[in-house]
Amino acid sequence: MLIVGERINGMFTDIRKAIESGDPKPLEEWAKKQEDNGAHFLDINTGPTAKDQVAVMEWLVENTQEYTNIPLCLDSTNYDAIEAGLKKCKKPAMINSITAERHKIERVMPMAVEHNALLIALTMNEEGVPKDHEKRIGFAMELVAAADEFGLSPDELYIDPLILPCNVAQDHGPEVLETLRQVKMLSNPAPKTILGLSNVSQNTVEDKRELINRTYATMAMGAGLDAAICDANDDELVAAIATARILLNQDIYCDSYIDVFKQSG
Amino acid sequence: MLIVGERINGMFTDIRKAIESGDPKPLEEWAKKQEDNGAHFLDINTGPTAKDQVAVMEWLVENTQEYTNIPLCLDSTNYDAIEAGLKKCKKPAMINSITAERHKIERVMPMAVEHNALLIALTMNEEGVPKDHEKRIGFAMELVAAADEFGLSPDELYIDPLILPCNVAQDHGPEVLETLRQVKMLSNPAPKTILGLSNVSQNTVEDKRELINRTYATMAMGAGLDAAICDANDDELVAAIATARILLNQDIYCDSYIDVFKQSG
Repeated sequence: MLIVGERINGMFTDIRKAIESGDPKPLEEWAKKQEDNGAHFLDINTGPTAKDQVAVMEWLVENTQEYTNIPLCLDSTNYDAIEAGLKKCKKPAMINSITAERHKIERVMPMAVEHNALLIALTMNEEGVPKDHEKRIGFAMELVAAADEFGLSPDELYIDPLILPCNVAQDHGPEVLETLRQVKMLSNPAPKTILGLSNVSQNTVEDKRELINRTYATMAMGAGLDAAICDANDDELVAAIATARILLNQDIYCDSYIDVFKQSG
Repeated sequence: MLIVGERINGMFTDIRKAIESGDPKPLEEWAKKQEDNGAHFLDINTGPTAKDQVAVMEWLVENTQEYTNIPLCLDSTNYDAIEAGLKKCKKPAMINSITAERHKIERVMPMAVEHNALLIALTMNEEGVPKDHEKRIGFAMELVAAADEFGLSPDELYIDPLILPCNVAQDHGPEVLETLRQVKMLSNPAPKTILGLSNVSQNTVEDKRELINRTYATMAMGAGLDAAICDANDDELVAAIATARILLNQDIYCDSYIDVFKQSG
């Protein structure tokens, strides 16, 4: 499973200050820390900023690439910023994200094809996140059909069925697992799947957040999850993911399999 | 999910010594410790003993019941010992186990019906454990049909698809998960499912055994697992199981949900 490290995001105070001051030190710190712990991609999100989003995204991409060779996941609802970021990426990137809304599909899918980028697509539209797996699968079908229309291979599409916090939308947990299973039946090759993992534990009690995250991660992997945007520096999460890969027969068991997994990042 | 505490088993030195000396102290210790940590059933296994298996099973059942009110799971290949134990049980018990072999089915299913006991049935026959989920499901179908024949409700049958150690039979991991999912489609009401969990980590490196056990437990729960024979005193395992129940919407989230889960044992 791919780990997309979530930490270079203007929602975090140190990254916001880095953006404001133009000091790339926190980018260096988090690029290295996340890569060292097994991240395969690094999410890059400007967060809320008074500066120009396009310029901030370019700055984040350029500076992060100074400190790491792993590819980036450009995370914004501002598609001009994403497009500008893509032009700066040295490696094929991931785009985060579109929804099942036609104007977003038409704006972003050609961009993904042009830049050879992977594309995260959320199973929702302007009406919000559906409650059950049937509607989520309906949106996933629309997104797979659109990928075909625009010439994006279905396995370059990462369907995100959107997990909500378990303390406010507990009934979504099993629905998302069922969505992950059924997405794999939509096309051949099958679409990939991804989750914004930390969301599942949002506003739960602090001492259980990591436990909730890693428990859901492994259950979702059992249902076919291919990638997660998550805390790459949560050692127990990374160990659980490495273990689930062994138990799903995706990596060969050896006594040091966790270290081997981290070195594959 | 039901936790069947595995600890009262003559394979453990303290229990073997208790059986040899006739001193029930270790039974008291483990009955209380397992119940306090959330076990719903206690496995009772004579282990290898020079004494008469029937008498040992009776002694274990009678003495364990002195210290706990939770029901017992009688674990033996000696069906005379199981039958004798069932007669001593104060509460409806669980029988561990039969396979898809006709002489075992004919010997044990009527006993389960007579004593109102739940019955664990392994998806194997005299030729051993199959490698793939298709053959496991074939055995599960035979077992469900036999339950119908003998008047045991399918939801009193606990199908065990047999997880083998991940370091020697790694390809079985995903096959067992798929079996757990498909077993639920065999009848209405669906059969229940169970695993002998600790087996998955047998002979793996000692510092990863508990991690492997709890990772497989939560993945299996996501695939529909109803019960596990496991180490009820592994706090992190119990926490992971309680968390998976929350994320599968089987218990209502509250900040103290792990304590609530333990108190339900």
